[in-house]
Amino acid sequence: MARGEFSVIQQFFSRPVPQGMLGHGDDAARLRVPPDTDLVTCKDLLIEGRHFFADVDPYLLGHKALAVNLSDLAAMGATPLACLLGIGLPRTDDPWLEAFAQGFYQLADQWHCPLIGGDTVGSEQGVVISVTALGTLPQGQLGLRRDLAMVDDDIWVSGDLGAADIALKGLTGVLDLPPERLAGVRPHLEQPMPRVALGRALLPLAHAAIDISDGLVQDLQHVLDASHCGAILEQASLPIHPSLSGFESTIVQSAILHGGDAYELCFTAPVAARKAIEALSESQAVSLTRIGTVCAQQGLFLRQQDGQLNAAKGSGFDHFKRSGEHD
Amino acid sequence: MARGEFSVIQQFFSRPVPQGMLGHGDDAARLRVPPDTDLVTCKDLLIEGRHFFADVDPYLLGHKALAVNLSDLAAMGATPLACLLGIGLPRTDDPWLEAFAQGFYQLADQWHCPLIGGDTVGSEQGVVISVTALGTLPQGQLGLRRDLAMVDDDIWVSGDLGAADIALKGLTGVLDLPPERLAGVRPHLEQPMPRVALGRALLPLAHAAIDISDGLVQDLQHVLDASHCGAILEQASLPIHPSLSGFESTIVQSAILHGGDAYELCFTAPVAARKAIEALSESQAVSLTRIGTVCAQQGLFLRQQDGQLNAAKGSGFDHFKRSGEHD
Repeated sequence: MARGEFSVIQQFFSRPVPQGMLGHGDDAARLRVPPDTDLVTCKDLLIEGRHFFADVDPYLLGHKALAVNLSDLAAMGATPLACLLGIGLPRTDDPWLEAFAQGFYQLADQWHCPLIGGDTVGSEQGVVISVTALGTLPQGQLGLRRDLAMVDDDIWVSGDLGAADIALKGLTGVLDLPPERLAGVRPHLEQPMPRVALGRALLPLAHAAIDISDGLVQDLQHVLDASHCGAILEQASLPIHPSLSGFESTIVQSAILHGGDAYELCFTAPVAARKAIEALSESQAVSLTRIGTVCAQQGLFLRQQDGQLNAAKGSGFDHFKRSGEHD
Repeated sequence: MARGEFSVIQQFFSRPVPQGMLGHGDDAARLRVPPDTDLVTCKDLLIEGRHFFADVDPYLLGHKALAVNLSDLAAMGATPLACLLGIGLPRTDDPWLEAFAQGFYQLADQWHCPLIGGDTVGSEQGVVISVTALGTLPQGQLGLRRDLAMVDDDIWVSGDLGAADIALKGLTGVLDLPPERLAGVRPHLEQPMPRVALGRALLPLAHAAIDISDGLVQDLQHVLDASHCGAILEQASLPIHPSLSGFESTIVQSAILHGGDAYELCFTAPVAARKAIEALSESQAVSLTRIGTVCAQQGLFLRQQDGQLNAAKGSGFDHFKRSGEHD
């Protein structure tokens, strides 16, 4: 390998950082936290062969590596402040790094979330990416936590569900998709748009929130567990992505309830907030759908269109069990 | 694999966090930054086969994963605030994880640096560890940056150099070490002690600082480059670790000047600070050695014991070039 870690950082990851921050080129990055704010931090690790394919478009990978972290900040209602990038590389491939950096910076710029530091190392096996995002909450704001859902809250979800899951199944050969259908769903898997503005706007309206990374049922179950309550979801209300039309209902059902990588927000809010949430949907031009109700009885139930109530299976989607899909 | 990522976090990485912090079990961790402070953040990525051996003692690996980050905070003069851990695992091995967590938490407790969040994922290839450490500086304090070395500053180094490098060479077979000699140097490689208290105490005394992770010459060169100056090191003053006695002088020379993983602090300070630094050495019971002087002429020179001045080769130690040693 001709090039060391220092020149990788210098060449690809050393754009200037805002005043008040000391960025690349020191042991650590220094940044001023605005007064009267609380800090919110999250970290996601992405590993080749597990979270992305070796031949993924590096621009999209750079985007997604940051997007999944901004989605975590969004699910807290936090405003992005800055981020750090750790990257392990089997080789230094200039066009690949250039595209990766562009995808990363493009999203970082969009949300005013400067890259202020990190680490670049060699990796024998494959690409490893670790992003840490820092965000802020107005001081005293608890944020959109998982443990504050209340009985009788409405349950809402942003956007439409299922497209990323269909794309993953198409790419792994679990589903046989015609190329034009695959092309239609792929961006939902590979270039998810974190709901940062929505999360911030929900701070005064919602009680609890989570982003859907592991599937609606599994992620909502985390909220219910943390809040010590249960929920009934209305099958007929679930927002199905248009790309799912024409598929068997079992495939659609699985994609919506258990499909990961959606990066939509699922949140609970009091009935009194309905009008404000509908207004927010219009002002932000993002569909927000009421899909159920929080109840005191623990468990997660799905009301079928014929009125029957079934337990929603909590099997979901766990990164430890997903490897087979990528082999 | 029987167990998913959620139970790994619950079982091994969910100790309580201090009041004012929201830790594990949400999308992100929330923490209050003390008023009138600046935040300092750093991130190090450790990859199996590159930064540690597959059969490393997991307790020591947990220790080192945090130690290398605390060392970066120390090199800024920052006080640890909290940390995040991302870990990629090929399998869930309870005794391994328990020992890793113990090593990690033991050091975290020592420096009051609670683990507040992170990510646990599967990894096809090997163990991948990403730690982010957050620290604080009194507001307005620039920290011990790399770019503030001044001409005529003394150059200091903490502790003794070379032991970690000898251990690495022994473990990789580059050097043939008798078992008792290897046992003596191994802790310096596998369980480095970050100089956190020293870094904080140097804030009002030192101009520039760096921690020695890639070798004295290479790391000091970063300070000189950033500060646009040069330096002369005194060969006779370099603090040689006692474990290096009996080795050929070329091996000793290479270990001291180019050996990585030392995690000692190299710093520059004005001549007027000598007495205070010597007092600090006594009060903290850590040896601090004056090893050279910053000069206006760029370049890094080594004054031999016969008075001759040679350029210190800047080849050093770069993680991208290190893979051969681990094969």
